[in-house]
Amino acid sequence: MGLFSKDIETMNDLFIHQLGDVHYAEKRIVGALPEMIAKASSPRLRKAFEMHLEQTRGHVRRVEQAFEMLGKSASSVNCPAIDGIIEEAEEVAGDVDDKKVLDAALIAAAQAVEHYEIARYGTLIAWAKSLGRDDCARVFKETLAEEKAADDILTQVAEQGVNQAAA
Amino acid sequence: MGLFSKDIETMNDLFIHQLGDVHYAEKRIVGALPEMIAKASSPRLRKAFEMHLEQTRGHVRRVEQAFEMLGKSASSVNCPAIDGIIEEAEEVAGDVDDKKVLDAALIAAAQAVEHYEIARYGTLIAWAKSLGRDDCARVFKETLAEEKAADDILTQVAEQGVNQAAA
Repeated sequence: MGLFSKDIETMNDLFIHQLGDVHYAEKRIVGALPEMIAKASSPRLRKAFEMHLEQTRGHVRRVEQAFEMLGKSASSVNCPAIDGIIEEAEEVAGDVDDKKVLDAALIAAAQAVEHYEIARYGTLIAWAKSLGRDDCARVFKETLAEEKAADDILTQVAEQGVNQAAA
Repeated sequence: MGLFSKDIETMNDLFIHQLGDVHYAEKRIVGALPEMIAKASSPRLRKAFEMHLEQTRGHVRRVEQAFEMLGKSASSVNCPAIDGIIEEAEEVAGDVDDKKVLDAALIAAAQAVEHYEIARYGTLIAWAKSLGRDDCARVFKETLAEEKAADDILTQVAEQGVNQAAA
């Protein structure tokens, strides 16, 4: 937010603004995941994070593809929401010594990130459709499916070992 | 976060910390919803927000009930995530003049809040179970069901009128 401030007059402006928001968020996540990978002890968790880092790089490209479809150059707007979610993740991770408890905390943090993205892509798909931009909606549906799958994998990793080991 | 910093040694500490986080978040949402109600134009949207404000007051009480179950006094910890999500909601809402576009923006903001809570209660339920606290898990399942229902209602309000009116 910020760059586009006061420029939101139409639904199309709001859509472009939201695109800039997820562009910022996805890049922030690409920046945050390597540290989460380094902190994870469970091999399954580390693998899930590594796979999601690769996917997230693809999500950045898809957002840029949507900007292209709209004839705009890709640009980010500040997103206090993802900043806050990542700040909270780093604070908690920094306060946990035990490696098994840390794994549980990392999963919780990653699932908060996933749910932020699930909310945002759900909104972007609905807005794209209402604006007659089914091309953008299609691209975001692919990303949304990957975000939901990533969230499900984290639930499995938590419930099939990590939480029990931590408790 | 903050108050409990450096005190997270066990999974139980992490659980209590997360309880303080949602306690803060729910109270922050109770504080933010009246402004969203005042800004909403769609009668259906206003009604959905009013209903959720009432539910959210109940969610605060349920978090306090969980603290009691654990023999602790309820206390909040700062939660940069919900602060960021609400800050972003207020920034965007402040940048939109058109009332129909504003309704669409308000729904998006509220769904980001809902998804944050869906992530947190999902985590709390899983952690409660791994700690043998099925009593807490039961309480949070009620809240989680209400958060998911609130998110579904917002999707309906968006897709059955608000987005089309804004576009």
